[in-house]
Amino acid sequence: MVKASDLLSLVADNMIYVEDKMRSGISEKHKDLQSVVDYLVGAGGKRLRPALTMMAASFYPVDKDKLYCLAGAVELLHTATLVHDDLIDNSLFRRGMPTLNVSWSPAATILTGDFLFARSAQLAAQTDSVRIVNIFSETLMTIVGGELNQLFNDGHKRVPSIEEYHQRIYAKTASLFAAGTEMGGILSQAPEDQIGALRDFGYYLGMAFQVVDDILDFKGDEDHIGKPVANDLRQGIATLPVMLFNEDHPNHPTILKAVGKEYVSDEEILDVVNKIRASGYVEATMEEAVRFARQAQAALEKLPNTPYRQAMHGLADYTITRDI
Amino acid sequence: MVKASDLLSLVADNMIYVEDKMRSGISEKHKDLQSVVDYLVGAGGKRLRPALTMMAASFYPVDKDKLYCLAGAVELLHTATLVHDDLIDNSLFRRGMPTLNVSWSPAATILTGDFLFARSAQLAAQTDSVRIVNIFSETLMTIVGGELNQLFNDGHKRVPSIEEYHQRIYAKTASLFAAGTEMGGILSQAPEDQIGALRDFGYYLGMAFQVVDDILDFKGDEDHIGKPVANDLRQGIATLPVMLFNEDHPNHPTILKAVGKEYVSDEEILDVVNKIRASGYVEATMEEAVRFARQAQAALEKLPNTPYRQAMHGLADYTITRDI
Repeated sequence: MVKASDLLSLVADNMIYVEDKMRSGISEKHKDLQSVVDYLVGAGGKRLRPALTMMAASFYPVDKDKLYCLAGAVELLHTATLVHDDLIDNSLFRRGMPTLNVSWSPAATILTGDFLFARSAQLAAQTDSVRIVNIFSETLMTIVGGELNQLFNDGHKRVPSIEEYHQRIYAKTASLFAAGTEMGGILSQAPEDQIGALRDFGYYLGMAFQVVDDILDFKGDEDHIGKPVANDLRQGIATLPVMLFNEDHPNHPTILKAVGKEYVSDEEILDVVNKIRASGYVEATMEEAVRFARQAQAALEKLPNTPYRQAMHGLADYTITRDI
Repeated sequence: MVKASDLLSLVADNMIYVEDKMRSGISEKHKDLQSVVDYLVGAGGKRLRPALTMMAASFYPVDKDKLYCLAGAVELLHTATLVHDDLIDNSLFRRGMPTLNVSWSPAATILTGDFLFARSAQLAAQTDSVRIVNIFSETLMTIVGGELNQLFNDGHKRVPSIEEYHQRIYAKTASLFAAGTEMGGILSQAPEDQIGALRDFGYYLGMAFQVVDDILDFKGDEDHIGKPVANDLRQGIATLPVMLFNEDHPNHPTILKAVGKEYVSDEEILDVVNKIRASGYVEATMEEAVRFARQAQAALEKLPNTPYRQAMHGLADYTITRDI
């Protein structure tokens, strides 16, 4: 199977400089804050977003230091949203390590997230590009706006439309992928049509990535991805497999209760999960992910054919084959 | 007595455009978010920070629309920090209106603050000035870093030094005053030495403002400023009157208990407050505020002598006479 690490190897050597940027910029007075940021950066992750940002900037000569700032800004923004999300969801683990909110007060967790937002904006500004700073702040608005929208819509207690699903996964995942690749293109002064192609690539890759994440929620067991099966549905969030099932079997009582935020038993969840799995809705969802991945690959054709482009093509394949 | 509204009247007509900027930029899809932002903007405040930003930009011709964006960015940043602070402190009222966290979930309150941070950064970027965006993000880091520092230092359980006090009130208040006036100078393309003078003015005015706020905490009664007397000390925060008292009377048991986050009775607080009031420590603190205000006024001398400069001079006087 394709390994992400192979595909990311082209930019792996630079990741250490990106992580240096992520850890930097904290006054020597703030030793406690420094150790928290070191902990969060050390907790890792696949670093897909900064890797994509760097790959997207590979087609034309680029100021390396600014690129590390930009890639670090993208990953820190992602980290900041996770810090607040984990607090909001009361999550206990992230990437196999205890979350900040487990050992810390809500106050310290909120403020650490705020600090990371501020530092990520500052790193983005170090590119000296107002266009990049604009995309950066708009992306943060999109991500947070999507989460707020979901909170407000919780009151509506219905299965969302496919269009709403697309908007949600764009806000949650594809917006930052797309921003990273677009900003990488801008920083390397790629021609405008190629900047557009890079944004499209990031967008479709991010959409594919999130659809597959939603599939994994139906496939995984606790050992595998660290949470119970159909965790989203348990929380009242209908993802694509549920939505496709719902089109053919409207008003299933378990799904209505779940999106209505009523109590649903483990048995009821497993029963509807088995129905969804048995009737091909997971496979139908995968077809959607494959379509997105192919659109990502099609966007690449506007770019010079380099080893980086080939790795990006491979990443789209990896996205739809990972861990399944 | 000097009224703030008279001094701010020079920029009052423009504030409506600033508030328009603060309310703008929210997608039509997000009607619930729009009403929350409208509520927060409608709750008002003295608008001292955007007024100072606009006054600082008055000495040379400036792009009005960009100035409204900048002033709106400054006030939205302030609003965002208040939203998170009120949640952290579990405050029930702000400016006589219920806080967001009273009627809303912590999740929605955290995310609304995040959204306001993002929107304020976007407004700052609309000045098309990377230098401004840099100052803006650094100021947010300073504000949040100061709050985190205070949280961490709570473990130290001692009365802080005067230097630490100055750092804290800089982070809390003077940093954003200074950033506002500096960015106003930059946007209006003032000569560098005048930009420096504008920053100095904002800095010293902000320091004076916060010292007076700390005095009001010793003077106020519940009707007057909406919180019990010596609210800071009750929360374990030693401000300048306490610090000056502590220099002459070290190891007072009530103060040691308060900064050690131990329970202190209402009687004990009132007893030490009366001692501090009776022995001239409030007046000594006021002398410090007056020194800061005079330094602010001295900084103005590098600027052209206009009605705006005179209003800024008057604002420094107002700062040390307001409500006392």
